[in-house]
Amino acid sequence: MVRVRLAGICNTDIEILRGYHNFHGTLGHEFVGDVVRVASASDKYWVGRRVVGEINVACAGLEFRHHGRRKICGYCRRGIPTHCQRRRVLGILGHDGAFAEFLALPVVNLHRVPAGVPDDAAVFTEPLAAACEILEQVDVSAHREACVLGDGKLAQLIGGVLRTAGLRVVMIGKHASKLRLARRAGIETVQVGGRAPRRANAFTLVVEATGSASGLAMAQQITAPRGTLVLKSTFHGAAPVETWPIVVKEITLIGSRCGPFHPALDLLRSGRVDPRPLISRVFKLKDVAKAIRYAQRPGVMKVLLRSQDIDSKE
Amino acid sequence: MVRVRLAGICNTDIEILRGYHNFHGTLGHEFVGDVVRVASASDKYWVGRRVVGEINVACAGLEFRHHGRRKICGYCRRGIPTHCQRRRVLGILGHDGAFAEFLALPVVNLHRVPAGVPDDAAVFTEPLAAACEILEQVDVSAHREACVLGDGKLAQLIGGVLRTAGLRVVMIGKHASKLRLARRAGIETVQVGGRAPRRANAFTLVVEATGSASGLAMAQQITAPRGTLVLKSTFHGAAPVETWPIVVKEITLIGSRCGPFHPALDLLRSGRVDPRPLISRVFKLKDVAKAIRYAQRPGVMKVLLRSQDIDSKE
Repeated sequence: MVRVRLAGICNTDIEILRGYHNFHGTLGHEFVGDVVRVASASDKYWVGRRVVGEINVACAGLEFRHHGRRKICGYCRRGIPTHCQRRRVLGILGHDGAFAEFLALPVVNLHRVPAGVPDDAAVFTEPLAAACEILEQVDVSAHREACVLGDGKLAQLIGGVLRTAGLRVVMIGKHASKLRLARRAGIETVQVGGRAPRRANAFTLVVEATGSASGLAMAQQITAPRGTLVLKSTFHGAAPVETWPIVVKEITLIGSRCGPFHPALDLLRSGRVDPRPLISRVFKLKDVAKAIRYAQRPGVMKVLLRSQDIDSKE
Repeated sequence: MVRVRLAGICNTDIEILRGYHNFHGTLGHEFVGDVVRVASASDKYWVGRRVVGEINVACAGLEFRHHGRRKICGYCRRGIPTHCQRRRVLGILGHDGAFAEFLALPVVNLHRVPAGVPDDAAVFTEPLAAACEILEQVDVSAHREACVLGDGKLAQLIGGVLRTAGLRVVMIGKHASKLRLARRAGIETVQVGGRAPRRANAFTLVVEATGSASGLAMAQQITAPRGTLVLKSTFHGAAPVETWPIVVKEITLIGSRCGPFHPALDLLRSGRVDPRPLISRVFKLKDVAKAIRYAQRPGVMKVLLRSQDIDSKE
């Protein structure tokens, strides 16, 4: 059991409120907190530790608690708990989330936060891990530059991660203020209106992180023949997509979701990625409804929720 | 210059008539014929040869004819003429096609047809090469079985090619008669109505070859998490697609177009793939309009056009 210090509002939370995944329960999957209780005496080490947590609650982790009486699923057996066939997902699927004073996660999901990393950076571990997933899926050494489509919170973290991997990064977005943030992090930017920039076939590696239905079409357009297009956006509903460019240009499109926490924590500890400029505002937990409305305003980036009665570690 | 013996009608030809690629000119990109004239004396070897031809007319091939006075494009330089930035495509893009007595192609595009391969098998070389492209793009040895979605002409060739690569192949289609053809070629079949079969996440390798807008959604559904989905269908217009399953399941979606002619000709010569049961009817070239209408009838597979005054080689 974890007492939540800080939680972050993600676009996925907004999409869930719009009907995505038909989730009913406590939202929230980005957090940093303190372990206050464990189920097994052998896990006492964890009590009092400041932690972040992986959000997929896989059957392998639960089995461990149940002394292996049931068989674990094929994905857990292969070491891919993020695709566990019986998984629940913190604040997204069958498991109450982090917009609360307390949350529960299996011990295997937890990672200690290094001492030097303040709460308001640690709370970005989950989305930063999702950005790091791209490095697990794509051999970025085969590319000299990458385009990140979108200028939101996740897009900015992705841009930062790709920069640390040695790529020149060009961000294409619509919002001057958000692109300014990216430039401060060493990312080149191109501001566009509703239409695609004149960059057809310009990039061998494109990450679609607009979070909107129109992103994929533009992403296809700017991806070079035989190029790689990483898809990060999840949103509720269907987008009208012409798929023939994927075929004609033989694009490899890679869906990318949750990622590894260790490299994300390493990036935070070393300071190679500093997500704190992305924070727009911190609300009290009791004002969560107000905070979610605020997070949907144009130009707003990361909105955090702070539990009361907890001294934040800065 | 090639005198066409036989030409095949492809779904792409039908889609072009519906507006795909906005092509105006002579249709047709599947053919077998005889070289009747060459531009350069050094190519005299080719005169009288029975040939099939790659359909992408790349700048590299043309440069060769022009003594390198212009620079060739980056894709041709990297040996990927199918993605030449200045390419024309036989019967599809800026280059008159094979539904004619004669067509013109650069000599570099031609392949001799082995003596034992009859015209009505050789005419399938181009679509069979497109099926072989999948083996260039996907490490099929990582899979035990594959699902081919669709039961049309290209789907059947893909099923045959994947069988020769050692995979168990399951074809999901709507048409009893077409699925019967597949079973005769050693392919397992599942007949479905408009809805997806209950095979969610069942296949680690899926090839979408329905040629229709609804195929991708079903393909996403049956592809396993972290699975590979090869996209072959090209059609005019946009399909409403929910893209979040690609992200959540971290599917790798690979667009796949034209393929290598050598392995295709090898498969035809060895008889390991025999496409001739796919032939529904042969029309005379002068009846091309009638043939194209016939090719759109339900249940019709490959329709061929035979030039008159040519003794076909059977």
